[in-house]
Amino acid sequence: MEKIVIVGGVAAGPKTACRLKRLKPDAQITIIDQDELISYGGCGIPYYISGEVADADALRSTSFDLVRDEAFFADAKGVDVKTNMQATRIDRKSKTLHLKNLLNNTEEAIPYDKLVLTVGSRPVIPPIAGAELKGVYTISSLKSAIALQKYLREGDAEKAVIIGGGAIGIEMAEGLEDMWGLKTTIVEFLPQLLPNFIEKPIEQMLSHHLKKNNIDVFTSESVTALEADENGVVARVVTNKQVLEAELVLISTGVRPRDELAREAGLLVAPRGGIVVNNRMQTSDPDIYAAGDCIETYHQVSGKKTFAPLGSLANRQGRIVADNLAGIYSRFDGVVGSFIMKAFEICVGTTGLTLKAARAEGFDADMSFIVQSDQAHFIQGHEDIVLAMVFDRKSRRVLGVQGLSVMGDSILARINAAAGLLSRNAVIEDFSVLEMAYAPPFSTALDALNVVANVAENNIAGRFRPISLLDFIAWVENPESCPDRIVIDVRSVFDSRNEVERFGDLWLPLPYPEIRTRYQELPKDKELILVCGAGTRSYEVQVFLDSVGYTRNLVLEGSLMALRPMGIEWVSEED
Amino acid sequence: MEKIVIVGGVAAGPKTACRLKRLKPDAQITIIDQDELISYGGCGIPYYISGEVADADALRSTSFDLVRDEAFFADAKGVDVKTNMQATRIDRKSKTLHLKNLLNNTEEAIPYDKLVLTVGSRPVIPPIAGAELKGVYTISSLKSAIALQKYLREGDAEKAVIIGGGAIGIEMAEGLEDMWGLKTTIVEFLPQLLPNFIEKPIEQMLSHHLKKNNIDVFTSESVTALEADENGVVARVVTNKQVLEAELVLISTGVRPRDELAREAGLLVAPRGGIVVNNRMQTSDPDIYAAGDCIETYHQVSGKKTFAPLGSLANRQGRIVADNLAGIYSRFDGVVGSFIMKAFEICVGTTGLTLKAARAEGFDADMSFIVQSDQAHFIQGHEDIVLAMVFDRKSRRVLGVQGLSVMGDSILARINAAAGLLSRNAVIEDFSVLEMAYAPPFSTALDALNVVANVAENNIAGRFRPISLLDFIAWVENPESCPDRIVIDVRSVFDSRNEVERFGDLWLPLPYPEIRTRYQELPKDKELILVCGAGTRSYEVQVFLDSVGYTRNLVLEGSLMALRPMGIEWVSEED
Repeated sequence: MEKIVIVGGVAAGPKTACRLKRLKPDAQITIIDQDELISYGGCGIPYYISGEVADADALRSTSFDLVRDEAFFADAKGVDVKTNMQATRIDRKSKTLHLKNLLNNTEEAIPYDKLVLTVGSRPVIPPIAGAELKGVYTISSLKSAIALQKYLREGDAEKAVIIGGGAIGIEMAEGLEDMWGLKTTIVEFLPQLLPNFIEKPIEQMLSHHLKKNNIDVFTSESVTALEADENGVVARVVTNKQVLEAELVLISTGVRPRDELAREAGLLVAPRGGIVVNNRMQTSDPDIYAAGDCIETYHQVSGKKTFAPLGSLANRQGRIVADNLAGIYSRFDGVVGSFIMKAFEICVGTTGLTLKAARAEGFDADMSFIVQSDQAHFIQGHEDIVLAMVFDRKSRRVLGVQGLSVMGDSILARINAAAGLLSRNAVIEDFSVLEMAYAPPFSTALDALNVVANVAENNIAGRFRPISLLDFIAWVENPESCPDRIVIDVRSVFDSRNEVERFGDLWLPLPYPEIRTRYQELPKDKELILVCGAGTRSYEVQVFLDSVGYTRNLVLEGSLMALRPMGIEWVSEED
Repeated sequence: MEKIVIVGGVAAGPKTACRLKRLKPDAQITIIDQDELISYGGCGIPYYISGEVADADALRSTSFDLVRDEAFFADAKGVDVKTNMQATRIDRKSKTLHLKNLLNNTEEAIPYDKLVLTVGSRPVIPPIAGAELKGVYTISSLKSAIALQKYLREGDAEKAVIIGGGAIGIEMAEGLEDMWGLKTTIVEFLPQLLPNFIEKPIEQMLSHHLKKNNIDVFTSESVTALEADENGVVARVVTNKQVLEAELVLISTGVRPRDELAREAGLLVAPRGGIVVNNRMQTSDPDIYAAGDCIETYHQVSGKKTFAPLGSLANRQGRIVADNLAGIYSRFDGVVGSFIMKAFEICVGTTGLTLKAARAEGFDADMSFIVQSDQAHFIQGHEDIVLAMVFDRKSRRVLGVQGLSVMGDSILARINAAAGLLSRNAVIEDFSVLEMAYAPPFSTALDALNVVANVAENNIAGRFRPISLLDFIAWVENPESCPDRIVIDVRSVFDSRNEVERFGDLWLPLPYPEIRTRYQELPKDKELILVCGAGTRSYEVQVFLDSVGYTRNLVLEGSLMALRPMGIEWVSEED
């Protein structure tokens, strides 16, 4: 009977085990885990902390409410599970795995025919004094989440600081604020939240939304020390700019692959971490496979190796390991980086590369950016959807899509539509005609994803020349920085437009339907910044002005509708 | 100055005109329309009837609330529009379009350099006696919708019959019932609603939902005559099975392309209707283009010509016509058939071919079918999502995806993700690893779309052998039809399971975790129908039973969770 030993029992490991047992019912499959809790939805931990998930067992239960413990795996799955067992060494010559029983410190060794490493990742702990204090947590496992929840329940923490503005940090902030009423602050070392996931204007919308929900956000700020009260419990977070009070500190500054076991066994491991596997999920030892957070994978857009620690990928990879172990040809060709998250009443999603990442990879990258309705504008209750598309000007390849909307699946619908095409080198024109399903309650006749591609096409052709939101905001806050610029506002209604009053001569109204008869009123010696509600009118005016020789003009990218979500209060609310 | 004449001013025509004017500001562009209302969202008509859209002008307004009338096109777009003008003849030799002014019956002719036909479609009126009666409507234009609304407002209709169970018929039924309180009946000639769009089990869920919302649905029933009251207003609908009272009858039995003008001008027109165009949208006369409902297009899955009258496609095609007229290489390579609709509290979507259509096209087609959670099962308020995947057993190509869920964008997210891959000949394995964005509030770690692909893969491999929902239902309603079958119910909880009581010896409980120790209790002389809540347990049991020699077993496709939405009341509600 073939012996399959799997090290790591959270996501990829159990998936491998269960699928393989179905493919090869006679295989003897053993899962080893150093923890006592296995096979849980790690991505659900923030929802456990927030109280959305009532108790920790729900995260390790099936959809039909059986807890996935050792007995469940034995009885229902026919898979042997050994918990509280640490894999200490792989003897590849004798094909033996050495184990330490963490409960009684005894050692043992078990033979394998095939070994699967699904050992996951561990949190990166920055070298901060005080990181070991009571009240300082990482969310590295369900066990640590249970401990944190106990601390919250039994203690009287009133203020929390989260170090790291990634997805888990933001999700945890929501949980701490919403469920536990903690005054919560996020401190991020880089200049923005979700670095490497979203463009700055979208990040500014996210950040503004968090602040509206009582979360303080500090970026470009680094924590230098954690300080304790007289009981040795954390009390203060010292940054390079301030001191924050906190009885709870969460460190969520990313994870790195647990690759030591592989490295020590002489398997190929990437210099920056991650077990090297081929697209059949096989390590440099043909009898050892690896999957999940502990591996290095391939980015299908950048064409480079990457690290993509996500439970959803671990599940896909686990299935592929099982297939290959059972003799079924099955490949994992890499990732495009699909990502989505909820933050209070909004959600943010992305797939592919950001503009900055794309440029760093050598693409001649640029971005289109729109704010428009998620449903036909005549449907009541339609909401704005923000989409950005990153593309290569030379090859016209689409490199990434990002979006933000109110909570719901509208961003999911656009990100998922993009993901499949991104993995297949699709160009802008493929997105222009992509057949998004249409009915008025679901989208506009040309879906936002089609439109953001059309804007990209017009941009490359030089017909659409934008000024970025950030450049525009910087200029209106300091018009002297570019004194020969003025705004031409081509919206129709100007009663009670704050901005016309606020900016005076710098902000001239000229309704869009009048442009063809009145354009000669425009100053020829100024750079004209064309603005409107959603960007379609100002684009059309740009094209017209170009045709009559007023070519010194730029359209506000994303339009005025983008400003209020970014926290710019002076822009009027109505279109 | 180049003269572009566009015949038809609803969707493709205005899109062509506006895009072309931006690309070639010096072109002289004229839109001709026989109606007086132009450039409206025809797909919004049911929402106008339902009152969701407050007045008809909203359907022909921009998102910034300007009505798209002749003045708007002249002032804002620089495009000339002639309404109430019927194009009567194309003189291709002299490149002249002959027109009749419908207001004063005068005739005129205008020259063109390029002509664009975007004349749309007209409703198919079946040969039913009385179709011309007062109170009988088609929804062929905004004008007819306004007339219908006036009839509803001013009359006292209490009952409506809708002839035709397609999307518009169903959307109109909702509007008539919801807004106007009419007792509404849908009569469909074919055996199901949305024929050629969805599989029968999904249709049965839709039909059940309509009935719960007070809509009567009769399929496989044909209307033979409409009868009037003493005032000549429709009063009765006579079918081949019954007589229905109705003071309002809507005929929505499909549309056919308006291709006469093209045909009479000697342009190539498909035998079954539709102007023939190449993928640059050019007719058989290089100076004449066509787009929208009046053309024949190409189905990227079937590889055959098709007719796809949708406003969303018309908009895409209009843009491509404009590009090509402006010398930009731009192609429309066909459709995959993406479709979505709302029906009261649920929505139904599809892309690609149905199983029946795929088989008719010669594919070795089969289907996988799942019901599962749209979010991680530990998220409160998660809902069921139904997905079906049609695939070719030989080539493994995915041919279609369909779904149903509660109203929202969760089906949109799966249909849109599938659409791009369908157009690129993707196989099942591409869908298995498709990187759907994941976080617990948005999907399961393996998204439903990944799962339905995995089920297809297991089906082809022979590991997963289903009995279809319809076969199962037929059998339990008449067990004598297959007397040596029994149901093995592998769910865990059996208290208050109606079905165990109802079916007695035919319905044996055997909880999933006990299968490996108790399988020998199962009868060897019976065909075992394995059922559970969501299908995962029964599949696993199937694999296990196969491995121990109990190979005469089938899994209920879609699982017991599919039954209640189909209107099967005896199945217990809890998992």
